[in-house]
Amino acid sequence: MDTALDPRRALTDDELRRLDAYWRAANYLTVGQIYLMGNPLLREPLTPDDIKPRLLGHWGTSPGLNLIYAHLNRTIVARDLNAMLITGPGHGGPAIVANTWLEGSWEERYHNVSRDEAGMARLFRQFSFPGGIPSHVAAEVPGSIHEGGELGYALSHAYGAAFDHPDLLVACVIGDGEAETGPLAGSWLSNVFLNPARDGAVLPILHLNGYKIANPTVLARIPETDLLEILHGSGYQPYVVAGDDPAQVHRTLAATLDRALDEIAAIQRRARSGGTIERPRWPMIVLRTPKGWTGPREVDGTPVEGTYRAHQVPLSQVRDNPAHLAELERWLRSYRPEELFDATGAPVEELRTLPPRGDRRMSANPVTNGGLVLRDLNLPDFRTYGVAVPSPGEPMAGATGVLGPWIRDVIAANPETFRLFGPDEVASNRLGAAFEVTDRAWVAATVPGDDHLSPDGRVLEVLSEHLCQGWLEGYLLTGRHGVFTSYEAFIHIVDSMVNQHAKWLKVTRAIPWRQPLASLNYLLSSHVWRQDHNGFSHQDPGFIDHVVNKKAEVVRVYLPPDANTLLATMDHCLRSRHYINVVVAGKQAAPNWLTMTEAIQHTRRGLGIWEWASSDGGSEPDVVLACCGDVPTLETLAAADLLRQHLPELRVRLVNVVDLMRLQPATEHPHGLPDNEFDTIFTADRPVVFAYHGYPWLIHRLTYRRANHDNLHVRGYKEEGTTTTPFDMVMLNDLDRFHLVIDVIDRVPGLAARAAHLRQQMVDARQSARDYTRRYGEDDPQVAEWRWVRETAPTNP
Amino acid sequence: MDTALDPRRALTDDELRRLDAYWRAANYLTVGQIYLMGNPLLREPLTPDDIKPRLLGHWGTSPGLNLIYAHLNRTIVARDLNAMLITGPGHGGPAIVANTWLEGSWEERYHNVSRDEAGMARLFRQFSFPGGIPSHVAAEVPGSIHEGGELGYALSHAYGAAFDHPDLLVACVIGDGEAETGPLAGSWLSNVFLNPARDGAVLPILHLNGYKIANPTVLARIPETDLLEILHGSGYQPYVVAGDDPAQVHRTLAATLDRALDEIAAIQRRARSGGTIERPRWPMIVLRTPKGWTGPREVDGTPVEGTYRAHQVPLSQVRDNPAHLAELERWLRSYRPEELFDATGAPVEELRTLPPRGDRRMSANPVTNGGLVLRDLNLPDFRTYGVAVPSPGEPMAGATGVLGPWIRDVIAANPETFRLFGPDEVASNRLGAAFEVTDRAWVAATVPGDDHLSPDGRVLEVLSEHLCQGWLEGYLLTGRHGVFTSYEAFIHIVDSMVNQHAKWLKVTRAIPWRQPLASLNYLLSSHVWRQDHNGFSHQDPGFIDHVVNKKAEVVRVYLPPDANTLLATMDHCLRSRHYINVVVAGKQAAPNWLTMTEAIQHTRRGLGIWEWASSDGGSEPDVVLACCGDVPTLETLAAADLLRQHLPELRVRLVNVVDLMRLQPATEHPHGLPDNEFDTIFTADRPVVFAYHGYPWLIHRLTYRRANHDNLHVRGYKEEGTTTTPFDMVMLNDLDRFHLVIDVIDRVPGLAARAAHLRQQMVDARQSARDYTRRYGEDDPQVAEWRWVRETAPTNP
Repeated sequence: MDTALDPRRALTDDELRRLDAYWRAANYLTVGQIYLMGNPLLREPLTPDDIKPRLLGHWGTSPGLNLIYAHLNRTIVARDLNAMLITGPGHGGPAIVANTWLEGSWEERYHNVSRDEAGMARLFRQFSFPGGIPSHVAAEVPGSIHEGGELGYALSHAYGAAFDHPDLLVACVIGDGEAETGPLAGSWLSNVFLNPARDGAVLPILHLNGYKIANPTVLARIPETDLLEILHGSGYQPYVVAGDDPAQVHRTLAATLDRALDEIAAIQRRARSGGTIERPRWPMIVLRTPKGWTGPREVDGTPVEGTYRAHQVPLSQVRDNPAHLAELERWLRSYRPEELFDATGAPVEELRTLPPRGDRRMSANPVTNGGLVLRDLNLPDFRTYGVAVPSPGEPMAGATGVLGPWIRDVIAANPETFRLFGPDEVASNRLGAAFEVTDRAWVAATVPGDDHLSPDGRVLEVLSEHLCQGWLEGYLLTGRHGVFTSYEAFIHIVDSMVNQHAKWLKVTRAIPWRQPLASLNYLLSSHVWRQDHNGFSHQDPGFIDHVVNKKAEVVRVYLPPDANTLLATMDHCLRSRHYINVVVAGKQAAPNWLTMTEAIQHTRRGLGIWEWASSDGGSEPDVVLACCGDVPTLETLAAADLLRQHLPELRVRLVNVVDLMRLQPATEHPHGLPDNEFDTIFTADRPVVFAYHGYPWLIHRLTYRRANHDNLHVRGYKEEGTTTTPFDMVMLNDLDRFHLVIDVIDRVPGLAARAAHLRQQMVDARQSARDYTRRYGEDDPQVAEWRWVRETAPTNP
Repeated sequence: MDTALDPRRALTDDELRRLDAYWRAANYLTVGQIYLMGNPLLREPLTPDDIKPRLLGHWGTSPGLNLIYAHLNRTIVARDLNAMLITGPGHGGPAIVANTWLEGSWEERYHNVSRDEAGMARLFRQFSFPGGIPSHVAAEVPGSIHEGGELGYALSHAYGAAFDHPDLLVACVIGDGEAETGPLAGSWLSNVFLNPARDGAVLPILHLNGYKIANPTVLARIPETDLLEILHGSGYQPYVVAGDDPAQVHRTLAATLDRALDEIAAIQRRARSGGTIERPRWPMIVLRTPKGWTGPREVDGTPVEGTYRAHQVPLSQVRDNPAHLAELERWLRSYRPEELFDATGAPVEELRTLPPRGDRRMSANPVTNGGLVLRDLNLPDFRTYGVAVPSPGEPMAGATGVLGPWIRDVIAANPETFRLFGPDEVASNRLGAAFEVTDRAWVAATVPGDDHLSPDGRVLEVLSEHLCQGWLEGYLLTGRHGVFTSYEAFIHIVDSMVNQHAKWLKVTRAIPWRQPLASLNYLLSSHVWRQDHNGFSHQDPGFIDHVVNKKAEVVRVYLPPDANTLLATMDHCLRSRHYINVVVAGKQAAPNWLTMTEAIQHTRRGLGIWEWASSDGGSEPDVVLACCGDVPTLETLAAADLLRQHLPELRVRLVNVVDLMRLQPATEHPHGLPDNEFDTIFTADRPVVFAYHGYPWLIHRLTYRRANHDNLHVRGYKEEGTTTTPFDMVMLNDLDRFHLVIDVIDRVPGLAARAAHLRQQMVDARQSARDYTRRYGEDDPQVAEWRWVRETAPTNP
């Protein structure tokens, strides 16, 4: 401990006494939530009937959380801080709930859980109770943006919340269990991306209580000097607060918090006084206190306090075992509730006046209910960014490259509320236009020749999908907007984080005081069909399947077939609220099909018949060729053209799908097409050959209730790939134009005999294309393949 | 640099000259693979026709990899080491391929790519070429167990390979890009779980070449003192080797490697001489050399060597731009190929004799072809571990708790080749019996009261699914066995790792010299239906959906309905090879249905009619009740019993599914049931009410081609959950017994009118159950719910 820090000076004896009383009150309320369903103030001796029949909850982390909360409150009042708290150990729900009740924000949201005896009884009973509240720091808890059920994301959420909130202090408790996860371990260096002038501050508090569910934690058992090296090396100045004597810990923690906040203030002052922004060494706290502190020391002769046995419910037989019941009563009374709550059950005046007021309460900070502070983006008119399409198939242009300038101007027009996130792939995904108006955020060293790095950059690039996702979630949850661009295959890295965010969105739809957030937007490029060069490891379209499992009301998936449609789609996504939007788009030069006007109409409908590519003349077709995704659309158009050339009498209808959710029944998804409209487009009885971007069975899953489902034949990615050419990729998966023609011949009744010659031509063409691919060296295969494309591209009749 | 380390002494001038020649040869072969398709030895001046039409590959990391490979080879020969290499920057494929060709192991696998001019031409042409080899260190590369396409898992794979291989040295190159990922950041402390006496050694080599695709790397730009603190704090003694002068770097790297290997030897000697095992400070190397070292300094006036522009192909216009062509020729000739290869194109004698021989070559180490060294497990007879089931429904026993003693004895019977992995959930998942024979591996500090921690423990518990998965993959890929047990919801954390492993398994099936591995076995408990206490964040059954997207030939999914079936299933899984087996099983006390004999037969068939629970008397039923998963099975049996009581004339057939893949057509999956058998069981035209563990649409997806699919009505998890009771969980998702009865009434033709009264009773029962749940406090709901179960459980007629 630095000698400049004098714990004796931080608190007067009276302050210490009041702070400790507040802590005891929160601890009492925590234990009450875990155990009690009656007799909340212990006006009578405890009886088994006062005890919940099923004991749920996590005591172990809670006294530490209560300690931190009380001390943060002291500093918020003393310094008039704009602060919020991320509780990594979110299973310490009862602790945070207790504090919000003490502060009054709980009763403001839930009027019947008032700050009196009846309300306290409800507070206790509702916890982890059917019809009550979850056991974590869930969305129901005022001030929470982080439930903490799945571990690993506390610190990245904290940084995300701090970006572009210069006055905000984000305190972030990290459990030593969570600290073992990869995503958390990778979060420490987030400080390389935080600009002390423009962004707020994150104060990490690593809570070493020593144990997980059944094991000690790694960070609590390596030498403390090693731990401090890791943290210091990660750019922090760690201050250790350790002990099990409350008074000593109170004094040390108060002094340490004061010091940390002084340092943060000094860092921000320096950074904001002009001059070069340098990466400071941010203060942080290592809090080493016993797990289940102030709880039962031993139960039935076995140590509990300070061991993993304190993780959940220390006394488990309270209803049946009188000794346990007596011990619980002793434990509860050890907090001296009679000093903490008045005759009505309200916190005594001295406690009520201790926390901050109004919006200064961490549980009432408006940014923690992001929708409250969310402002619409200032969006430039996307229609002026499109490509001119004189006829379908012209010009060649990569979709994301066309989108880039619009994204650039979105960034420029929203300098404090929009960011672009990506794992080192923004330029690779052809969004490099962004760097005409901004840089990559970077507060570490730079050298001559560096490309668009600066502390002010609004593009966040780090080779960690977990960090990108965690930062973006934190940014959205506190009322801002963003886009995450990534390779399609590797977005699976954040599958589990997507689950948790989708659950948050679902739950908050039913919480009236939670306002809708900006949507979480994914722009996935470098997709499965154009990872021919990187090979099999980079080929996976399954993220769509993963997302579609989430609640329909929060999930949208778009596969724009060309550049103008991508522009219309992204504009829609950035205006939307409270969804997860997944957009898959190509980055390679490719033909464009729709004018801007057509693209807007097509995107609005979500799917539609492309009459210019159909040959059914508006009448009932012999076959429907459906497609979804840019590469399948190209192959389908080429197949339609082959059919027109070789079987001109065949009536072919071409349907393109942008909004995948249109395929589901209207009863299953808000975007679902009504059955009669679906039948009008896909017919009730004609064969449908459907070329789809991803795993083909997803289309079956979405359409299995449709009348014509038995006639649906889907081609898609069937997990065949390697390092090869783009056209070989579609061949390997039977998605190529020739195979689609074969599928049509095999499925249209009576066609097989009539078109036997054409079928054989298609088989030969596949063989010849394969041979061509193998020769390959004789010409640039991409050029050659695109020449094929142009040769077989349909022309507007 | 420590003064004890004298670079001048490590190499004689002649050794230096030969080592540098070897490095130049590997660099030459690397550049050749990226660019050339003819003229491999530059016998003529280069012409555009010699150049590949499409330039693919990653040069930037390659010279560093070649340097490391050459130096490791030197030490392997000098010390007769048993070593292997994990190449984190797997996109440096051409470098590792070059080395295996130089060592001769490539031509041993692929005879036509011989060590002569013709072979060299094939070596160059095949790289990243259709019909050739992928661009990464893929499964095709001898000595690879780690393709490195997706980043983050190099170090966890290395530790997995080292466990229980006491003589093995696993060198592991970690790119500074990969080091930004969460999973890699969380891997450093793997050394807390490595026993220096029993396990091999891992030598991490952090390669700081400074840049990713388009950005500098974080670790290269924080102060070096900070970086060294992070590494030292993580339990390593980092030695920095830095420079851009080849001779100096050769000398320093050689001396540093010698020192590191001396330290490893000393650590192992100490640990193996008896006495207490303590966590040593393992040596590691930080190698700071320019990206694209020895490549073009500048291209068209822009710096390339030592910048991110060297990441892939430094000269991109070689076919069209004579200046680029000339620069390529200069670059290739700078390695002086005429000194490196003889007249036939073979490496000169001096180079051929430099690498190790036979199995000592890293590219031929048998453990890197795990199936070669894999031995069958010694499996105790699972039949003796079962529960006696006098009649269906008795006794109550949790499935994983019954499995525990068998797992315990598997551990005991296979003390060097089997491990159990879990994120702090082994005891929570009721496999605590394991601790009767072993401990949790732990080489950090212990304190009195610790529970089964020791360096010799065979259970690996760390709060990181990424580490568990990475370690287990490394363990399996080097010829051993294991089980990963986790909460069902959070196994999504490793979705993306599963993708990569599934791809490895798929590809290696087609590589004749790769021998089958032990299967990757997941035992998922604490599943969606019994996370009522932890709440919504812990409820997700979608991992099954994710896995089922992978190639059918490598994927198996089992949902045993009770304890004996779980035993039979796990025995099968541990005997299987080269699959990903996902087993979902309950841990809570639950009724058991099948005797061991029945369970074995049922598991072997994968699904079957439970005649004792059916009322169709073997004739054609009016309705089929199908179920898959323990909780759905319980609800379905209860529904069948309700139907028997109230509609005794209704012929009900009850079908239980253990092996989910049986539902797919035989054409789609090797386990798929032929259509005629499927129709025999599920009928061709009767309503099927299917109660499924996970998302209901998966059942539709698996069965959409079956004759009776239109009659299939599936109940499952539809993303509704919170903190409540187990029975309320099934009610929230309409999977409860009452709703299943309603489904039957609504679907059997003519029944609606006849059973209107019963239908209303079921509606009332649901309301009453909901009320009961809300009252809840009046009794232990679990006890009460199981009383319900017993009251309504079917008895053997």
